[in-house]
Amino acid sequence: MNEAAAFHSNDYPYIDPVDSRHLLFRFRLAREDDSARVYVHYGNKYLFQNKRHRFELGKKYLTGRFAYYEGVVELDDQRVGYVFEIAEENGKKHYFSQNGLVDEYSFFDSYKDYLQFPYVHDSDCINAPSWVEQAVFYQIFPDRFRRMDFAKDDDYIDMKWGSRPTRMNHAGGDIKGIIASLDYLSGLGINAIYLTPIFTSPSNHKYDTVDYLRIDPQFGTEDDLKELIGQMHARGMRLVLDAVYNHMSFFAPPFQDVVTKGRQSPYEGWFMLREGKPDFRKRNYETFSTAAYMPKIDVDNQEAEAYLRKVTIHYLKLGIDGWRLDVGDEISHRFWRRLHDEVKAKFPNTILLGENWHFGPSFLRGDEFDGMMNYPFYYLAVDYLAERRISAAEASSRLNEIYLFYRKKATKMMLNLLDSHDTARFLTVAKDNVDALECGLALMFFHPGMSCIYYGTEIPMEGGLDPDCRRCFPYEKALAGSSHQELLKKLIALRKTIPLSEGDYSAHEENGLLVIHRRAGKKALTLRINATDEVVPFAGGAIVSYRAQGGSISPFGFVISES
Amino acid sequence: MNEAAAFHSNDYPYIDPVDSRHLLFRFRLAREDDSARVYVHYGNKYLFQNKRHRFELGKKYLTGRFAYYEGVVELDDQRVGYVFEIAEENGKKHYFSQNGLVDEYSFFDSYKDYLQFPYVHDSDCINAPSWVEQAVFYQIFPDRFRRMDFAKDDDYIDMKWGSRPTRMNHAGGDIKGIIASLDYLSGLGINAIYLTPIFTSPSNHKYDTVDYLRIDPQFGTEDDLKELIGQMHARGMRLVLDAVYNHMSFFAPPFQDVVTKGRQSPYEGWFMLREGKPDFRKRNYETFSTAAYMPKIDVDNQEAEAYLRKVTIHYLKLGIDGWRLDVGDEISHRFWRRLHDEVKAKFPNTILLGENWHFGPSFLRGDEFDGMMNYPFYYLAVDYLAERRISAAEASSRLNEIYLFYRKKATKMMLNLLDSHDTARFLTVAKDNVDALECGLALMFFHPGMSCIYYGTEIPMEGGLDPDCRRCFPYEKALAGSSHQELLKKLIALRKTIPLSEGDYSAHEENGLLVIHRRAGKKALTLRINATDEVVPFAGGAIVSYRAQGGSISPFGFVISES
Repeated sequence: MNEAAAFHSNDYPYIDPVDSRHLLFRFRLAREDDSARVYVHYGNKYLFQNKRHRFELGKKYLTGRFAYYEGVVELDDQRVGYVFEIAEENGKKHYFSQNGLVDEYSFFDSYKDYLQFPYVHDSDCINAPSWVEQAVFYQIFPDRFRRMDFAKDDDYIDMKWGSRPTRMNHAGGDIKGIIASLDYLSGLGINAIYLTPIFTSPSNHKYDTVDYLRIDPQFGTEDDLKELIGQMHARGMRLVLDAVYNHMSFFAPPFQDVVTKGRQSPYEGWFMLREGKPDFRKRNYETFSTAAYMPKIDVDNQEAEAYLRKVTIHYLKLGIDGWRLDVGDEISHRFWRRLHDEVKAKFPNTILLGENWHFGPSFLRGDEFDGMMNYPFYYLAVDYLAERRISAAEASSRLNEIYLFYRKKATKMMLNLLDSHDTARFLTVAKDNVDALECGLALMFFHPGMSCIYYGTEIPMEGGLDPDCRRCFPYEKALAGSSHQELLKKLIALRKTIPLSEGDYSAHEENGLLVIHRRAGKKALTLRINATDEVVPFAGGAIVSYRAQGGSISPFGFVISES
Repeated sequence: MNEAAAFHSNDYPYIDPVDSRHLLFRFRLAREDDSARVYVHYGNKYLFQNKRHRFELGKKYLTGRFAYYEGVVELDDQRVGYVFEIAEENGKKHYFSQNGLVDEYSFFDSYKDYLQFPYVHDSDCINAPSWVEQAVFYQIFPDRFRRMDFAKDDDYIDMKWGSRPTRMNHAGGDIKGIIASLDYLSGLGINAIYLTPIFTSPSNHKYDTVDYLRIDPQFGTEDDLKELIGQMHARGMRLVLDAVYNHMSFFAPPFQDVVTKGRQSPYEGWFMLREGKPDFRKRNYETFSTAAYMPKIDVDNQEAEAYLRKVTIHYLKLGIDGWRLDVGDEISHRFWRRLHDEVKAKFPNTILLGENWHFGPSFLRGDEFDGMMNYPFYYLAVDYLAERRISAAEASSRLNEIYLFYRKKATKMMLNLLDSHDTARFLTVAKDNVDALECGLALMFFHPGMSCIYYGTEIPMEGGLDPDCRRCFPYEKALAGSSHQELLKKLIALRKTIPLSEGDYSAHEENGLLVIHRRAGKKALTLRINATDEVVPFAGGAIVSYRAQGGSISPFGFVISES
């Protein structure tokens, strides 16, 4: 056995209380050792020497290099000591305790070095709001979605609807346009919307907020927002807004006060200055990336923190269902812990979704974000289906790693996506291969967590990198419908009939196909995607299929079967 | 190379901001691959594609199975992307990114999958109070240390001073006795005291609190505590009290109210009842371990939490320097996070020391405990020196693993110990081998973190498991002094001249000796311990030595050298 590859840590996600009575154990071996069997000996830590259970973990996830074993046990006591037993096919045994892998283990002396999860507290378990189970999001960039307010001052509009966007221009979309489209979206099966920022800001994207407590007049009023919330809730839909707390606009009154008064300003501590007075051209203050117009906020400043918490609570009180947290990974853990604490105490059914383009284990322990935008999934989908850089085997390996990276219930609240306002559209990356997009959508709906469709994916829209990915939505075309839209509806409907965010998951390769298994209770679904250049034979039933018939799947076709 | 053994996670302790400008990186390879060199490519995540640094990590810690590489870099930007490069001796290269180990890596595409530490915030760094650097603790079990209050009602004393303790009897020690001994303790070099509980309770150990806001009259009054604090601070000494928040006494008024009124009691939510009314004989409520007289507190209950926070702050206001947190590992993370937040905001120079007999990574991320009682170190010392179960090579391997388990600054605040009121005394476990105790003390003073001497170790006292480890302190004998006491003083003094809790550390085996290197700036100390049955030659200078002369170290001797 490759002993140095055996791995477990008594920390998330290798041990994870699913709830106060169920504990999940994970153990990792090298892939070449996957004929071994893995057991966990567990029990009340005070009685462990004499009384414990032995439970076999399932070999559930295979990656290129590793075999992951997993199991959930029902606890008879919340105070848990445990030791793993690894049984090789040749009869050789190993044990894994706090001191690592050993060949012989004395359960009599186990108090010295068993691993422990000292107490499973309710308050340390993650409680996902029930609505996330079936959540299918639609992300809207409001300036480009639809205009329905024709009474507003529209001097700011400097772009003809449908023309190519630039970084600076404004097309005129607004909240009334979204309200008017709710029946259409609901008809697709969409039951949640994530809006990029809507607060006052000079830009079209509004990630440089001037006033967090005022809806940008270009988009409407707070009454429009209330109307949107009411109309959405009446349709069983949820609304998530975008919280930009990493930075504000150079033109935000607090920062402008510092620009004028320097260290004398009462807002001086809200920002991260390097010299006395902020100077746009010198950029002598911390910013988002290298953007001088986005001065970074010091969220650990007491007044700045209080202000941002007030903003957070204000809109939750209006009825929104959660926040997407812009540049969430560059804001302090301390700030998120405190905000999460307050939000969850007052509004337990909301979700906090961090933006993070990379793996970020520190944010998803249950006390900061609930979930994150799943960019590692996005990159996987791009690599496999759009840019075709990796094989089905590599794709399955990475999918399993992505799935295993966080606590089980945090994984339920990941926001899976194929593209966003910050990426080129998947279709365009795939060089307009609509079939690749269909496969991508199927893959996304099968991935544990919530799904998020970028507006216009149902057309499907094209678009390169920002600003091209923010084109105007062709509402008339959308209403006309298409076979592509029908397939999307079917996939969304299927996603909701089975609790795809729950239950077992695994990915593997088979005949060059990427195969995803999902199981929850007695229901099981299997997705098979063919991203090769060959027609691959497949004999089996299908409840949904695309480019597949007569016992085979064509390139960029897929089949979903029930079992 | 053993590719499946290569390990890094972008989480503590594999990446760890030492302060807002210095970031520590760790990487692990299999021991057999320790001829490889490991580099980290790091830089501003937004500019990483074009501009980054390459820094070689040092091969610092070898264990039986692994080689750990480590390095601290100075940051020019707080937003960090990074990728490891592993260069084998044969010229073969590997890279380690978010997608694991690969043979070829495209820095051009690195935004997709570099590892990141997205922002180093001050508030996410650990700030150890400066006094912990030189802290040498003395743990006192007050009932057995010294009596100096002869005015108190002493009807409760049912044990002659110096007779063998039972679980239930009381010897009469008190706070005045500790105050009267401060000059003696200070003379040994002790500069911090940890007192087991002193609040009102029927037992001699007082881990079953009846009234947290009243000093037990057996021990004195709140004025005595104030006097103790004042006298200690005047001598530059620190005081840590014992917070028993996991449970209280069956006889505590809140629990008695529940015993009487059941679910009607306003305190019902403070505890974890399984039936209506608590019944001592049925033990129909959660307890500590199986102790019916210690009903477990639900610290997530709002009122219970508020009460315990009030207690915490009350004594910090009186001037104590920290809390040792009894059964800290069985109390919710939520409770500790919130308490830590409040305590550190109001009293930044205090420490919170959790009791935890095992590795507990979740508690030492910087937002719950500051440090913990280092029982894994205790077991190592017992296995190696007292029970002689393991070799110097195994001891060095385990010492390195213990050292590497937590964030660097949390390690500084670990409370290293050879024994406590909950273990047999080290001397007794070592079958009265005083030489083994001397080696153990040297080993403890060399281990990163704070040192803690259990009262009477300077005699040295004997004692088996509880209650025998809680014998009466022979004050007269202590005052008389001994060569053992002189050696202890020398080790404590040495511990304070070099910031042993800071700087580099590594353990290894050499000629059967256990060798510990410490380095801080230009100062370096090496400890060599001989726990074999043979005289081992050693040619070199010594600033402190024990059972070593003429170029050799006798069994259970040690040498400390400067270099």
